[in-house]
Amino acid sequence: MTIRGLEVIDLRFPTSRTHAGSDAVHPDPDYSAAYVILSTDGGIEGHGLTFTIGRGTEIVVAAVEALRHLVVGMSLAEIAADFRSFWHQLASDSQLRWLGPEKGVIHLALAAIVNAVWDLWAKSARKPVWKLLADMTPQQLVSCVDFSYITDAITPEEAIEMLARRAGTKADREAELLRIGYPAYNTSVGWMGYSDETIAALCRMAIADGWTHFKVKVGGRPEDDRHRLSIVRQAIGPARTLMIDANQKWDVAEAINRVTELAQFQPWWIEEPTSPDDVLGHAAIANAVRPLGIGVATGEHCANRIVFKQLLQAHAIDFCQIDSCRLGGVNENLAVILMADKFGVPVCPHAGGVGLCEYVQHLSMFDFIAVSGTMDGRLIEFVDHLHEHFEEPVVIRRGRYLPPEQPGYSITIREASRMKHRYPDGEAWA
Amino acid sequence: MTIRGLEVIDLRFPTSRTHAGSDAVHPDPDYSAAYVILSTDGGIEGHGLTFTIGRGTEIVVAAVEALRHLVVGMSLAEIAADFRSFWHQLASDSQLRWLGPEKGVIHLALAAIVNAVWDLWAKSARKPVWKLLADMTPQQLVSCVDFSYITDAITPEEAIEMLARRAGTKADREAELLRIGYPAYNTSVGWMGYSDETIAALCRMAIADGWTHFKVKVGGRPEDDRHRLSIVRQAIGPARTLMIDANQKWDVAEAINRVTELAQFQPWWIEEPTSPDDVLGHAAIANAVRPLGIGVATGEHCANRIVFKQLLQAHAIDFCQIDSCRLGGVNENLAVILMADKFGVPVCPHAGGVGLCEYVQHLSMFDFIAVSGTMDGRLIEFVDHLHEHFEEPVVIRRGRYLPPEQPGYSITIREASRMKHRYPDGEAWA
Repeated sequence: MTIRGLEVIDLRFPTSRTHAGSDAVHPDPDYSAAYVILSTDGGIEGHGLTFTIGRGTEIVVAAVEALRHLVVGMSLAEIAADFRSFWHQLASDSQLRWLGPEKGVIHLALAAIVNAVWDLWAKSARKPVWKLLADMTPQQLVSCVDFSYITDAITPEEAIEMLARRAGTKADREAELLRIGYPAYNTSVGWMGYSDETIAALCRMAIADGWTHFKVKVGGRPEDDRHRLSIVRQAIGPARTLMIDANQKWDVAEAINRVTELAQFQPWWIEEPTSPDDVLGHAAIANAVRPLGIGVATGEHCANRIVFKQLLQAHAIDFCQIDSCRLGGVNENLAVILMADKFGVPVCPHAGGVGLCEYVQHLSMFDFIAVSGTMDGRLIEFVDHLHEHFEEPVVIRRGRYLPPEQPGYSITIREASRMKHRYPDGEAWA
Repeated sequence: MTIRGLEVIDLRFPTSRTHAGSDAVHPDPDYSAAYVILSTDGGIEGHGLTFTIGRGTEIVVAAVEALRHLVVGMSLAEIAADFRSFWHQLASDSQLRWLGPEKGVIHLALAAIVNAVWDLWAKSARKPVWKLLADMTPQQLVSCVDFSYITDAITPEEAIEMLARRAGTKADREAELLRIGYPAYNTSVGWMGYSDETIAALCRMAIADGWTHFKVKVGGRPEDDRHRLSIVRQAIGPARTLMIDANQKWDVAEAINRVTELAQFQPWWIEEPTSPDDVLGHAAIANAVRPLGIGVATGEHCANRIVFKQLLQAHAIDFCQIDSCRLGGVNENLAVILMADKFGVPVCPHAGGVGLCEYVQHLSMFDFIAVSGTMDGRLIEFVDHLHEHFEEPVVIRRGRYLPPEQPGYSITIREASRMKHRYPDGEAWA
């Protein structure tokens, strides 16, 4: 089966009209995607997307086009036989790499393509991506990972050894996963633009649905943050878990002060307290807030495995928030999942947006079966919007993700939704 | 004077045909630029460019277009009165920032625009940019800098104090600069793709022209690196200075081993030994090679002030290689120049490419007059190609840059060259 065509579509959902997804730094996101369709001569298509928030999606579309020459004409067998090399070629095209390297627009574009290849591979193997990954041998998995710039933290040999230690018990964990699902937390209750009444009502509904972990946006005026947290803490009671998310709003000293002030609400973690590029800043913040019982989480804006490597080396994070398409697709997520396991930091993926929940469930389920071997202290983010546009939306029961069953990466958006939300000519934008 | 229009052009020079600019990671660059022209109602234009190396320049062009709405319609007086806010708005557009933030394609695009505004401002003030900057008060300079995410390293108040200490003696240094120029080093002798004979001949010619500092590419096969360095060291003799540049080729341990092996050639610095994102990796390498008398230099691929902040905090670099358009134009370079001075690390800008020499001379000259107060241990990179396309090319005498005299940022490319190298329809690409 050979990849014969690549189509890329600018899809945008007008979410800013309802303030869904609003936070301290992104007051008006229109959840969007550069959506890739790989056509083949084998009767199946590979779908992949990279998440954006409105303006600029056309730039990522242009970047996907610029990578076309490295993808079209490749056979799935060639790629699967040496996925590390295929990935490395995309990430280090000798002229395009100047625009990164391995960060920003060109890396987002790479992720959409790479994930579409995984969708294709999984469909061809008639398995969901989590199962395709879980069934691979340690050697096969490691052959998908580009270890450039991370061998000071983990080597291929070490990774194989780590995976081999868990290989014998994979079947037990797969059975457990199928039985009970994977735990999740809820971010839908506390968006920045929501009223007090909305927040309290959403908390009550979520509790009734079985949710136990809730994340709330902070980084507004100090009194507003305190007010919003007190509403949520009151609604969820002392026994349920609260996390807070500043979306990069603060400088280092400000983050320490603000989080210290919010410690009274007993947040489990502070997410994105400062710039995603600031490894040393995160380490300073973590050192200051850990004695208060608060961990540091980050990752959704961390550009690549090299940034995650340093966050782990510097003991700067307590929760590793991989992103399915900020990192360079499944392959680079494997690298980070392996490093997080080595450093003993739980992986709690970033989700929400459009399609991120659909994507990351596969990564966490694989992590449980083949890498970490545990769901303790691990949660997948859940945000309840835009799922209706997917052919196989996530399934949540009592605050847990149930494993997807269809072959592929669960990322296919219904054709009618694609037509309607194509920017700027779709009906939603008319 | 109000900005009424923004034009952006995809310019590419077919440099890969001669191997000029080739190194271990970029074997075939076509030096290129997204070239911005701001038109005004005041009878002058602002020109700015961001440097790229071929494929993908069209992506940066698309990103410049996406920023248009933040620029067109602004008056120069409004911008100059609060340049910090203007810069911050460009860097943190609530939807576009998702594509970075402050890195990669969107940051390169921002730099082209911001530098065009400085060109406009300097022309309107009838001064070269270095002189415009040198004549500003500490308060005015600091009002151009966005201190977001760097206040743990430097505050506006500290910066004003630092600048005020040198303000009284600026006139002396300006006179010295006009008299003797600013020291430079030569990168034109040792590109990866050049033959032994070419390298030796170029060294001889450069010595005859008065050059004393030479940079050579490494990161090829170990025996090839040794061979190239032995040719250069023999040609330049023991008294002149040699620097080596690996262009991110190595992992951390490999970098330490390879540089240790090359210590016999007494390089003054190793440049870009590993990934530009790897602050901790650079620190490890610096700790290992400093005892050999070798410093670590990096910066041309460092995404923003936050990465430089950490390189300085972690004592990971001995030479701070600012880039005029990888960083977000003059304003973010000011931030890094100030931090480097505070941490006592000399600024030695990255140049070459197309227009980078023309740009960075202004930054180093300002640094000398108003910030560091010294040229000791400081050099501007010089690469001798593509200068003929500029209306005011750099002037080098006996290995030193002479201060530009015309108003503006010296970055205007001749109209005939723009026509000829416009991609894909210019004559050079026909």
